[in-house]
Amino acid sequence: MADDALVIFTPSGKRGRFAIGTPVLTAARQLGVDLDSVCGGRGICSKCQVSPGYGEFSKHGVTVTEGALSEWNEVEARYDRIRGLKEGRRLGCQAKVMGDVVIDVPPESQVHRQVIRKSATAREIIMDPAAHAYYVEVAEPDMHEPSGDFQRFALALKEQWQIEGLEAEPALLRRLQPILRKGDWKVTVILHKDHHGRVRILDLHPGFWEGRLYGLAIDLGSTTIAAHLCDLRNGNVLASSGVMNPQIRFGEDLMSRVSYAMMNPGGDREMTGAVRSALNDLALTIAGEAGIDPLQIVETVFVCNPVMHHLLLGIDPVELGQAPFALATSESLSLPARDLDLLAIHENARVYVLPCIAGHVGADCAAVALSEEPNKSDDMVLIVDVGTNAEILLGNRDRVLACSSPTGPAFEGAQISSGQRAAPGAIERVEIDPVTKEPRFRVIGCDIWSDSPDFAAATAQTGITGICGSGIIEVVAEMRMAGLLDASGLIGSAQQTGTARSIPQGRTHAYVLHDGTAEGGPLITVTQGDIRAIQLAKSALYAGARLLMDELGIETVDRIVLAGAFGAHISSKHAEVLGMIPDCPLDRISSAGNAAGTGARIALCNIAARAAIEEEVTRIHKVETAIEPRFQEHFVAANAIPHATAPFPELARIVTLPDVSFNTAGGGEAGRRRRRG
Amino acid sequence: MADDALVIFTPSGKRGRFAIGTPVLTAARQLGVDLDSVCGGRGICSKCQVSPGYGEFSKHGVTVTEGALSEWNEVEARYDRIRGLKEGRRLGCQAKVMGDVVIDVPPESQVHRQVIRKSATAREIIMDPAAHAYYVEVAEPDMHEPSGDFQRFALALKEQWQIEGLEAEPALLRRLQPILRKGDWKVTVILHKDHHGRVRILDLHPGFWEGRLYGLAIDLGSTTIAAHLCDLRNGNVLASSGVMNPQIRFGEDLMSRVSYAMMNPGGDREMTGAVRSALNDLALTIAGEAGIDPLQIVETVFVCNPVMHHLLLGIDPVELGQAPFALATSESLSLPARDLDLLAIHENARVYVLPCIAGHVGADCAAVALSEEPNKSDDMVLIVDVGTNAEILLGNRDRVLACSSPTGPAFEGAQISSGQRAAPGAIERVEIDPVTKEPRFRVIGCDIWSDSPDFAAATAQTGITGICGSGIIEVVAEMRMAGLLDASGLIGSAQQTGTARSIPQGRTHAYVLHDGTAEGGPLITVTQGDIRAIQLAKSALYAGARLLMDELGIETVDRIVLAGAFGAHISSKHAEVLGMIPDCPLDRISSAGNAAGTGARIALCNIAARAAIEEEVTRIHKVETAIEPRFQEHFVAANAIPHATAPFPELARIVTLPDVSFNTAGGGEAGRRRRRG
Repeated sequence: MADDALVIFTPSGKRGRFAIGTPVLTAARQLGVDLDSVCGGRGICSKCQVSPGYGEFSKHGVTVTEGALSEWNEVEARYDRIRGLKEGRRLGCQAKVMGDVVIDVPPESQVHRQVIRKSATAREIIMDPAAHAYYVEVAEPDMHEPSGDFQRFALALKEQWQIEGLEAEPALLRRLQPILRKGDWKVTVILHKDHHGRVRILDLHPGFWEGRLYGLAIDLGSTTIAAHLCDLRNGNVLASSGVMNPQIRFGEDLMSRVSYAMMNPGGDREMTGAVRSALNDLALTIAGEAGIDPLQIVETVFVCNPVMHHLLLGIDPVELGQAPFALATSESLSLPARDLDLLAIHENARVYVLPCIAGHVGADCAAVALSEEPNKSDDMVLIVDVGTNAEILLGNRDRVLACSSPTGPAFEGAQISSGQRAAPGAIERVEIDPVTKEPRFRVIGCDIWSDSPDFAAATAQTGITGICGSGIIEVVAEMRMAGLLDASGLIGSAQQTGTARSIPQGRTHAYVLHDGTAEGGPLITVTQGDIRAIQLAKSALYAGARLLMDELGIETVDRIVLAGAFGAHISSKHAEVLGMIPDCPLDRISSAGNAAGTGARIALCNIAARAAIEEEVTRIHKVETAIEPRFQEHFVAANAIPHATAPFPELARIVTLPDVSFNTAGGGEAGRRRRRG
Repeated sequence: MADDALVIFTPSGKRGRFAIGTPVLTAARQLGVDLDSVCGGRGICSKCQVSPGYGEFSKHGVTVTEGALSEWNEVEARYDRIRGLKEGRRLGCQAKVMGDVVIDVPPESQVHRQVIRKSATAREIIMDPAAHAYYVEVAEPDMHEPSGDFQRFALALKEQWQIEGLEAEPALLRRLQPILRKGDWKVTVILHKDHHGRVRILDLHPGFWEGRLYGLAIDLGSTTIAAHLCDLRNGNVLASSGVMNPQIRFGEDLMSRVSYAMMNPGGDREMTGAVRSALNDLALTIAGEAGIDPLQIVETVFVCNPVMHHLLLGIDPVELGQAPFALATSESLSLPARDLDLLAIHENARVYVLPCIAGHVGADCAAVALSEEPNKSDDMVLIVDVGTNAEILLGNRDRVLACSSPTGPAFEGAQISSGQRAAPGAIERVEIDPVTKEPRFRVIGCDIWSDSPDFAAATAQTGITGICGSGIIEVVAEMRMAGLLDASGLIGSAQQTGTARSIPQGRTHAYVLHDGTAEGGPLITVTQGDIRAIQLAKSALYAGARLLMDELGIETVDRIVLAGAFGAHISSKHAEVLGMIPDCPLDRISSAGNAAGTGARIALCNIAARAAIEEEVTRIHKVETAIEPRFQEHFVAANAIPHATAPFPELARIVTLPDVSFNTAGGGEAGRRRRRG
C-alpha cells in the first residue's frame, strides 16, 4: 500500500497527493479548495460536507475503490442520527484519505458560492462577505503562566484560523470573560474582515453558534430609499423595501436641499437626523418583513449621490452647491453603524459607503459601474441611471467617462401634476390610438389593460391613483406619436387635435388620461407643465450622454443600458421617441433594473468587489456638466420631441412622428428655467 | 568656489557635504539631525532656529568664514521685527549653506530634547510624544480633477510630512471643509501617531496654529489617584494633583471592591462610574491649577493595579478575585478617551493604558519597571512599590521577577486609628527619646520639629491632624527602638515602659504621640491595633520580597529601591528596623518617589517607551503569592519587629534593639486575618 494517495476535488479540479490518513478538510485547505468550515474541523458545524465519487474517472485518470476514504466514524454517525447526513455525504473533517479519491464539493459546502441572479444579462455575485462566524477553542487561564483571556482568545484565532490583528475594546472585553466561561472556553466569534485586512470583532457567542448574519444594501436616493436585506451566508435577498426620503420636506431636488442647509443654521443636521431616523425605521420594517431580528443585521452598504452621501455622514453639503463642487471625501468609508446613529441594527454593525467619483457623480454611480462593469465591456456602452439626478457612464475596456445630469425628479413622477411614485394604482403603461386619440393604460398591480371589461373589477382594490415615472414617459411619447403634441412639446387644443380629451387649462391645454371623478376618483390629466418638466428632464439626460460622446469623439454607441429604480420599466421605444437617449437599435437597449442597488448588494456580499470599485473609480474620467458650455448647447438642442433635426435615423424604423405644430395656439408657459438636482 | 560645502551639526556631530544653496533644515533632515519644524520649512513656525559658529574649529578640522551661510533674508528679517530672533540665531529653513559651516542646534530647537529630572538617580525622558502638530498646505479643489478635500489634505500630509494611513471619520470630515477654507487651504493638524504606526487625527486648526498640547499621566491607585499634567512639547510637569479614589466607599481594599461587584448586581458599573467621574473632576482641577484649558489635554496615560484597571475600563473584576486570577486582557490598550467617559478633556483625546503583568501584578508594576529598569541593572536590585498593594520586582539584566503582596492600606495611613493621607498637618517624621520615651515630630508643611519653641506658631495654620504613612512607620520603629514595643509587637504598659504616655486601652495599651485636646485638637495615639496593622503590612511586604529571593536562590540583594506615592518619605533606617525590607546596607537603599507615576509620565512623553515596556512585561516572570505556601511561611515568620532570628546582621550597625518582652501583659487582639487588597 502506498504512503500517499491522489486526491482530486471537483468542481475545481484541484489535485494533490496526501499522506494516508489526511482528513479531507486538511487536504482541501492545503490545495486552496473552497470548502467551508465554521468549527475548524471539529465535527460540530457540518459545513464541510463532501460527496466522494467511486468508480472509474477516466477524465481524471483515476479509479476510486471503496475504502478510498476512512469508514464512517462516531462523529459522523452521531451527526447523522441527530441531524441527518444526506445520502453519500461525508464530513470533510472526519473522513480521511485512504486511497486515490475524487471528492465533489457541493455548492452548499462552498464558502464562496455563486449567487445566480434571475436576470440573464446580469453578473453573478461570488459570496465573500466581510462578516463571518468562527468557532474557536480557547486555552484556560493558568496562574503560573498568566495571560489575559483576550490574549488567549486571540492566540486561538491565530492558531485555529490564521487570523491576527484583533483589537481589544472595553465593551467587548466586558463581555468576553463571562462568555468564555459560559461556553466552557469554546466560543463562536463573528468577525468583520475588510478588504484592507483589518479585522474587527462584531460579536461573541458562547459555544458553537449557528445563527445567521444579515446585511443591508441601501440605495439612498434623493426621493426614495431602497433597501435589500441579504443573507450573508448565501446572498439571498430575503426582503426588499423602500420608503420616501423624508428629506423631501426640506426640498424636492438636491439643490434645494443644499439651499436649505445654506439658509438655515443647523439645517444640514436636521436633514441628517431625518434620513438616519428613516434608515432605522426602514431596517426595522425590512427585518419585520423577512421575519428576522434586526439585531442580526451586521453590515450595511450605502450607495448614494454626493449630497445624500454628505447628509448621511453628517457633513454640511454646502460645498457641493457651488463650483468647484468639492467633496469632503471622495474615497470609500468604513465605519461603525453607531457613528451614523443606526441603532436599530446590531450594536457593532459596520457601514461601508462606496467611493464617490466627483462632486456631482456619487457612490451611486460607482455602484452602477460595479454592477454593469463598463470597464470590462468590448462594446461602447452607454449606461444611464435614471433617478432624480441621472448618472451617466460611457465607455469600454479602454476608457470610461462619467457625468451627472440634473434631470430633476420628473422621471420619478414628482413635479408632475398627477405624478406619484411607483405603487399599486399608478398608471405605468399607456397607449394612445393615433386615430381616435383614445388612451388605454395599465396600472401597477394589475395585468389587464384599461379597455378590458374586467379592468374595473381588477382595480377596484387599488383604484387608479396617478401616473408613475414610466407611465409619464409613455404617455408623453404616445401623445407625440398620436399627434396630440407637436415637436416643440405644445399640447394641441381640442380643435387642433380633434379630441375632447384636450381640455383648456389656463392659456395652455391638458390631455385627459383618465376621468375617475364619476366614481369619486381623480381626474388624471397630462398638463402643459408636465410636458415641460419631462422635456427639461429628458433634455438634461440626453445632453449629458451627448457630452460624454463628444468627449470620446463618437456619434453613436453600441448599446445602451437603462438603470435606475424604474429603469426596468421604461419602454425603450418610448424613451427613443421622447429623445431621452441617443439613437440605438432597440434590441441593443437593455434594462439593468436598479443597478446602483445591485452594486450595493455586490459590495455587501463580496469584499474584493469593494477593492475593485475603489480602484476603478480612480480611473473613471469625470466630466463636469455644470461648467461645460457644450452641455448647455446640447440641452437646448434636445428640447424638442424629438429635435427637428433629430439625429435619430433609427427612430424611423420604430414610428412615424406626425408633422404637427401648435405653436400659434401656444401661450406664456412657465418652467424653462434650468434646474440642477 | 566649490560646488558643495561641509556642514557639521553640533551637539550631534553629524556631518555631510551639501550643494551650495541647500537650506540648513534640508541638510539637517538628510543627515537625520534632530532639528524641529512645525511648518515644514516655510518660515512660519520659527522652531528650526540654529546658531552658526564662525572661526576655526580645530576639533572638526574646519574653518568657518563669514558668508558660510546666506545673508539674512526677508523672512528672517520679518520674523525678527515681529517676534525677535535671538542674537546669532538663524532660521534653519531660510539660511542656506554657502561654505563649510558648523551649526549648533540649541536644545529648544530639538524635537527629542531630554528632560532632565531633578532627582539625580532617576532616568531622563527623551521627548517623543504621540501627539504632534503639523502644518500643511493643501491643494485647492479642481473640478476638472475632482478629489475630496480629505484626499488632498491626506496627500499634503504625505508629501510634506511623509505621514500616511489616515482614516476619515465623519465627525472630522464635518469640520475639515470649513477649516480648510477659513485657513485659505493652510491647516495645522494635530496627529496622534502611536508606536504601532497608527495615525489618527486629533484636531484641526485653520492656518498655522501655535497652541500647546498637554497630557495627563495618572497613577490610579486603590486609595488615591495621582495625576501629573505634562506639556507634551518639553515634558514639563505643569501641575500635579491627587484625589482620593471615590471607590473607597465600596471597599477600602481591592478584595472588598471585588466582593462588592460580586454581591451587588451592577456594582462594578457603579464603581466604574465613580472613578470615571473622579477622573473628569481631577482633569478639571489640575487644568485649573495649571491655568490651561482642559480641552487642550489630548492624551492620558494610566497605570493601575489589575482591579483598578478593569474597573476603569468597565470590566467586571470578579475573575480577579478568585484563582486563577484571569485578567480580561493583559496587553496595553489604546483607545479614545470618550470610550472611558473622559469628557472633560479634548473630545478626540486618546488613552493609553500600560500592560498588566498578571492577575495581581498590574500596569502600575509595569510602570515601575519602565521607570526603574531592573532589566538594565548590573546589580541585583529589589524594587518595592509601596501602596495599598505592594508591587515587588527583583532582578537584574539577566532575569526579572515580579509579585504583588497584599499589604493593605496601612502604609498609606488607612486602617490606622489616627491615620490620614499625606497632607499638611499630618505627622510625617517621629523621633522618641529612648531614655525619656518622649516623642518629637514634624508635620507636613512645616520644617520645624515639635520640640522647638516656634513649632506651635508654625503649625497654627495647619494644626496637627493625624499620622500619615511615613509617620506611622517611623513611630512604630521608634517605639520599638525606645523599648515601648517588644519584638512581638506588644505595647508595654506605663509600668512596663516607665512612661505615662503608655495608656491603657481595653485590654491593650496605646502610646500618646500628641495630645492636642487642650487646644481643641485631636488626641493622636498609636494603638495596639495600629501596630498589628503595620505588622501585617510589613510582613506581607517582606514575605513577597523573600519569595522572589527564594525563586532566584539568593539570600541578599545588592540594592533596594523604595517606590510608591510615599516611598520618597520612608526613612530607610526605620524601614529596616520594622523589618519591612530585607537586610541591605543603608547607603544601598534609595527612593524612587512615585515610580509608577514616573513610568506613566515616561510612557506619556515617549512612545518608544511604550513599545519597550510592552516587550519587557512579556519577559518578566510572575510569581503568584496567593497560592505559594512559602509566602505564608515567610509572612508568619516576618511578623516580629524584627524577627527573633532576624536575618538582619546589617541592622546591628544601625541600632540596638532593646530585649524587652511584654507578652504577659498582652491580651486578645484582633487583626491577624490575612487580607488581600
